[in-house]
Amino acid sequence: MRIKLSLLLSLSLSPALSTRAFSSTASKMSNLPTAALLQFHVTDNKEANLLKATSFIEKAVTETTKNVKMVVLPEVWNSPYATNAFPSYAEPLPSLSTPTSFPNSPSSHLLSTLAAKHNVYIVGGSVPERDGEAIYNTCMVFNPDGHLVAKHRKVHLFDIDVPNGIKFKESDTLTKGNSLLNTFTTPDFGVVGLGVCYDLRFPELALLLRKKHDVSVICVPGAFNMTTGPAHWELLQRARAVDAQCYVLTASPARATREMLEASEREGKYKGYEAWGHSSGVSPWGEVVATTEEKEDVVYVEVDLGKVKAMKEGIPTSEQKREDLYVVEEK
Amino acid sequence: MRIKLSLLLSLSLSPALSTRAFSSTASKMSNLPTAALLQFHVTDNKEANLLKATSFIEKAVTETTKNVKMVVLPEVWNSPYATNAFPSYAEPLPSLSTPTSFPNSPSSHLLSTLAAKHNVYIVGGSVPERDGEAIYNTCMVFNPDGHLVAKHRKVHLFDIDVPNGIKFKESDTLTKGNSLLNTFTTPDFGVVGLGVCYDLRFPELALLLRKKHDVSVICVPGAFNMTTGPAHWELLQRARAVDAQCYVLTASPARATREMLEASEREGKYKGYEAWGHSSGVSPWGEVVATTEEKEDVVYVEVDLGKVKAMKEGIPTSEQKREDLYVVEEK
Repeated sequence: MRIKLSLLLSLSLSPALSTRAFSSTASKMSNLPTAALLQFHVTDNKEANLLKATSFIEKAVTETTKNVKMVVLPEVWNSPYATNAFPSYAEPLPSLSTPTSFPNSPSSHLLSTLAAKHNVYIVGGSVPERDGEAIYNTCMVFNPDGHLVAKHRKVHLFDIDVPNGIKFKESDTLTKGNSLLNTFTTPDFGVVGLGVCYDLRFPELALLLRKKHDVSVICVPGAFNMTTGPAHWELLQRARAVDAQCYVLTASPARATREMLEASEREGKYKGYEAWGHSSGVSPWGEVVATTEEKEDVVYVEVDLGKVKAMKEGIPTSEQKREDLYVVEEK
Repeated sequence: MRIKLSLLLSLSLSPALSTRAFSSTASKMSNLPTAALLQFHVTDNKEANLLKATSFIEKAVTETTKNVKMVVLPEVWNSPYATNAFPSYAEPLPSLSTPTSFPNSPSSHLLSTLAAKHNVYIVGGSVPERDGEAIYNTCMVFNPDGHLVAKHRKVHLFDIDVPNGIKFKESDTLTKGNSLLNTFTTPDFGVVGLGVCYDLRFPELALLLRKKHDVSVICVPGAFNMTTGPAHWELLQRARAVDAQCYVLTASPARATREMLEASEREGKYKGYEAWGHSSGVSPWGEVVATTEEKEDVVYVEVDLGKVKAMKEGIPTSEQKREDLYVVEEK
C-alpha cells in the first residue's frame, strides 16, 4: 500500500470531525504540560487510518489553549484489530540506531513528520511491525525533531478465553517483544515508560519501570474489549499508577459503531472488534483526572510533576520495599 | 490486665448490638462457604474489646443462614490504634510450635476458645505482640480445633506523612515482621494467604502468595484512614485480587464516633484514630461482592472457588508471565 504523505499532510479536516469530538475537557487555561490522548475509529482502509491520525494530531495540538507537549495514539491505529489483518498491514519500522529511516513505512514516516511539524512528542500508539518472519505489536515514540527515541514491542500477548465473554489470541500471528523496559525522557514529563494494552495486567512491568527508571509517566496504548474493559481497564490503570506512583496515560481506539461491525461481517475479511474506549489519564494518587466514553474524542491530561513528587514523599513505598524479603528484578 | 475468659464467654450480647448491625447482606440461602468480616468499634478498654469481639464472633456464626466457615477480625482490635498504646496492650503470642499455649495472652486464648466453640477458622485481625524487646502488629489464625495454624507479623509498617492528610509512624514503637509468606489451608477456602493493612500497597506480597502458594484467598485486616481510605482502600483490594486472581477479604475497625474521638481528646492518653471502615470482599474478577460503610457491621462474603478457577483459566496471567525478562522472588 503506497500513500502520498504530502497529500495526507495537506488535506483539510473531515467535516465529520465535529467540535464535540474534541471537547472532553473544559477550556481552563493552564501552563501545565499536557498530554493529548487520541481516541478515533480505525477501519480496514489504511490510508483512511493515516488520514484520521493526521487530522486528530493536528486538532489535538491546535484546537486547545492547553500546553500540549505530547500526543498519544491508540493501540493498532493503522490496521483492523484482527490477527489475520496484522501480517498484511505490518510495516518494517525504524530502530533506535536508524531513528529517521522509514523505507516502506508510511506510518512511521507520518508520525515522524507530524512530530516535527507540530513540535510535540508523539507516542505512536501501536502498529503491526514486520521484522523478518516475525510480526510485533509495536509502540514507537518520536521526539519534536521527528527522531525515533523509544520503541516498545508488546511484551505480553493478549491470549485470553473468557467463556461467554471474549476470546482472542494475538499469538496466532504476533510474536512477543523481548525488551521489557523502554523509556524516553522529555523536559516536561520527566522519564516516560511504555507498555501496550495487556502489559498493564502485569504489575512487574510498572514496578520495574519505577524501580529502574523512576518514571513519572507510563503511556499504555490499549484496546480493551467489552468484557474486560468495564471490569478492569480503569482498575488496572489506577492500580499501576498507585503501584508505581506515576501518571498512567492510555489511548484506545473509539468503539466500532453497529454500522462498522455490520460492514465487517458483510465483507467477512476481518472479524469486527469492539474496543471499550475510555482513554484516560490517571494521577499518581490514583485519580482519573481526565477520561471519555466510547466515541471519538481527544482527552487532555495535565501532568503535574509536583503530584508525582508529593506521592513519592508522602507515601514512600519505594524506600519501604522489603528487599531483604523479596525482590522484583529484570533478567 | 487480667480478664476472666469464662466471664467473657458466658456473657450475653449487649443490647446495643442491634439487628441492623448484622444485616449487611440479604438472607438468600446458599451453600457456598462464607467468610464473615467483623467491623466493630475498638476502645481503650481491653476487656470491653475482648467482649465486643466475643459477641461479634458469636453473632456472625449464629445469626445467619449462611455457611460461615471463617471469621475475620479487624486490625488491632484489642488496643487503641495508637503507637503509644501498643507497648502496654501487647501480649506474648503463641508460635506455630506451641499452637495451644497462651500464658499471659487473653486475646489469643479467647480466639482459640471461640474457634473451637463455633467450629470455624478465626483470622484474628491483628493485635500488638510482645516478643522480647520487640512489638509486632500480628495476625493469628486459629483452626476449628482452636490451634494456631498461621501467624503474620505486618511486614510493611505504616509510616506515612501526607501533607494536610494523614501522618502516622508505626515504627515509633513497632518492629517489622520478617516472615513474608504466611498461609493456611482449609477444606472450604483452599490456600489462604495473609497480610496486614499497609502490606496491601506492595504488589510483591500478593504476587508471591499466588506464585509460591497458589492462594485462592488473601485476608488483610486493615485500618485505613480518612485520607487514603476513600482514595485507595477499595482500589488496592481490587488490584490485588486481579493481580493474584484470588479473593481479597478485608476487615477494618468501625470508625470512631465524634463522641469517642472527643473522649480520647479529653483523656489525652491516646490520640483518636478514624478508621475508614468499609470491610469488603472482592472476587478474583475484581468485583466488590460484599461491603459496608463505616459503622459496626458483619459483612458476609460467599467464596466460590469456581470463580478462582475460571479467572485463572480465562485470563492465564501466571502462565503468561515473562520470566525470561523479569522475576519476582522471595529472598
